Amino acid sequence: MNHVERPEPPEPLAAGGFVRLRIDLSYDGARFAGWAKQPNTRTVQGELERGLATVLRLPSVPRVTCAGRTDTGVHARGQVAHVDVPLTAWEPLSREGRLARRLRGVLDRDVVVHDAAPAPPGFDARFSAIERRYIYRLNDCPGGPDPVRRGFVVWSHEPLAVDQIARASSQLLGLQDFATFCRKREGATTVRTLLRFEWVRDGYDVMAHVHADAFCHSMVRALVGSMLLVGTGRISSDAPAEALAGRARIPGWPVAPAHGLTLEEVVYPDVESLAAQAERARRLRTLADADPNSEADQDG
Amino acid sequence: MNHVERPEPPEPLAAGGFVRLRIDLSYDGARFAGWAKQPNTRTVQGELERGLATVLRLPSVPRVTCAGRTDTGVHARGQVAHVDVPLTAWEPLSREGRLARRLRGVLDRDVVVHDAAPAPPGFDARFSAIERRYIYRLNDCPGGPDPVRRGFVVWSHEPLAVDQIARASSQLLGLQDFATFCRKREGATTVRTLLRFEWVRDGYDVMAHVHADAFCHSMVRALVGSMLLVGTGRISSDAPAEALAGRARIPGWPVAPAHGLTLEEVVYPDVESLAAQAERARRLRTLADADPNSEADQDG
Repeated sequence: MNHVERPEPPEPLAAGGFVRLRIDLSYDGARFAGWAKQPNTRTVQGELERGLATVLRLPSVPRVTCAGRTDTGVHARGQVAHVDVPLTAWEPLSREGRLARRLRGVLDRDVVVHDAAPAPPGFDARFSAIERRYIYRLNDCPGGPDPVRRGFVVWSHEPLAVDQIARASSQLLGLQDFATFCRKREGATTVRTLLRFEWVRDGYDVMAHVHADAFCHSMVRALVGSMLLVGTGRISSDAPAEALAGRARIPGWPVAPAHGLTLEEVVYPDVESLAAQAERARRLRTLADADPNSEADQDG
Repeated sequence: MNHVERPEPPEPLAAGGFVRLRIDLSYDGARFAGWAKQPNTRTVQGELERGLATVLRLPSVPRVTCAGRTDTGVHARGQVAHVDVPLTAWEPLSREGRLARRLRGVLDRDVVVHDAAPAPPGFDARFSAIERRYIYRLNDCPGGPDPVRRGFVVWSHEPLAVDQIARASSQLLGLQDFATFCRKREGATTVRTLLRFEWVRDGYDVMAHVHADAFCHSMVRALVGSMLLVGTGRISSDAPAEALAGRARIPGWPVAPAHGLTLEEVVYPDVESLAAQAERARRLRTLADADPNSEADQDG
């Protein structure tokens, strides 16, 4: 064979005739036991892997990696994942929108692939991500939230003092040990950078924008849970920051319900920085985490 | 009895010791056979009247009148209704939010009363209204719409040319005979003023804002249905206006699905004009409509 004559393989390629696809997807978390695959349980990862195997006619189920491993009942509008598939399987479906449409044919209506296309070189859905953005949706209308949206909005039967909540939230920003607000996993770090924790009221609707480099397990919901105590006057607006300094979970502080939480967006650096960021994140997690399955970027 | 000594009855009063309540409500239309009460069928009016009778301990079911009688499957975020109830029944529940909270206790989660309070003098939910505002929600993402929102967003499997649609829509504005886009009822007028028919694209989401003084039966959905033909290149952007001039329904033009449609808002004039507007609207409808149950302000 004449290697010189051979056409350049299409960029980007994973190793050995495989192509890495970036998958942008959304799901309604109500009927999923979260993202991560488990035996005999309906999960987003499980459904997506099965769907990809079917439409790409793969001999075995491929492994899909996502940016934010959401917990049971948590929704996603802007989840990002990647999967490495044989180039020969991808090519017949490579026309724009074709793979997404085919997946629609085999997936249930509560998970939707918006886009599936070759990822730029160095892309890793989990480790290249530099920021995860969640929204938590509340409503304190006396009669209840808008019923069409009740699947993703949590009702507070008491009015919420958003000014107090906002004061409390702003004190938690920055690089901190969030052990107080995490379900602790042996050996896993709970240090994160909380980049944004802002509250917006629109009539009876109250939205929390929660952005971080990554989240610990149940961190957003624990943060919001403490803010519900602030907003209904049960604890002071300084209490969450004081609790954070104590680095221990507070008995009786609630974790807010899963269905109010949506992973809205995952942020990646410029294409040139993807590989370096992935390398850095991978090394950091390896250093910090004894558990190789650490859920360092999970929430739920 | 000394009438002079008696305290002034609290304003506003309907006749004979009754108070007229304005009710602001939302509902998820999926499991309702529309607004209007029918025997042996679950309707919004039926549920609301039953709920009011229960929480107000009324001896009989009160009659609730709404601003926009939505059809089966159509949602509402800003429906407005009124009901006349005995002052003695209202008073125990007159503290802010109390009636709405009580109704939450007896209504299913797909209908929510946001507010229920004495209406200003002259208020009639139907006849005082000067404008009904609907939004129709579409999505043309190849993989499908955001699954959390699939109950109120209609998927187009073909991309929609919103610029063409917008050009077509703007030609329908103003005072017109909308017979082409109405399910005709014997003796009922189909003349309406279309105040706004605008399209907004946000990524794959496409929203139509449709405002009119009132709507004929299935008018919004027929308008949107014709725009789906324009947006997918099946008819020209002049065709809907030409069809409007013809004043007859066009066989084969679709009526868009009910679940994409939401009654977002009802507009009322200043308090001083409520009674005059109601009088004017009532007279107009009486003149124009042979059918006393005319669905002049209905959509679906």
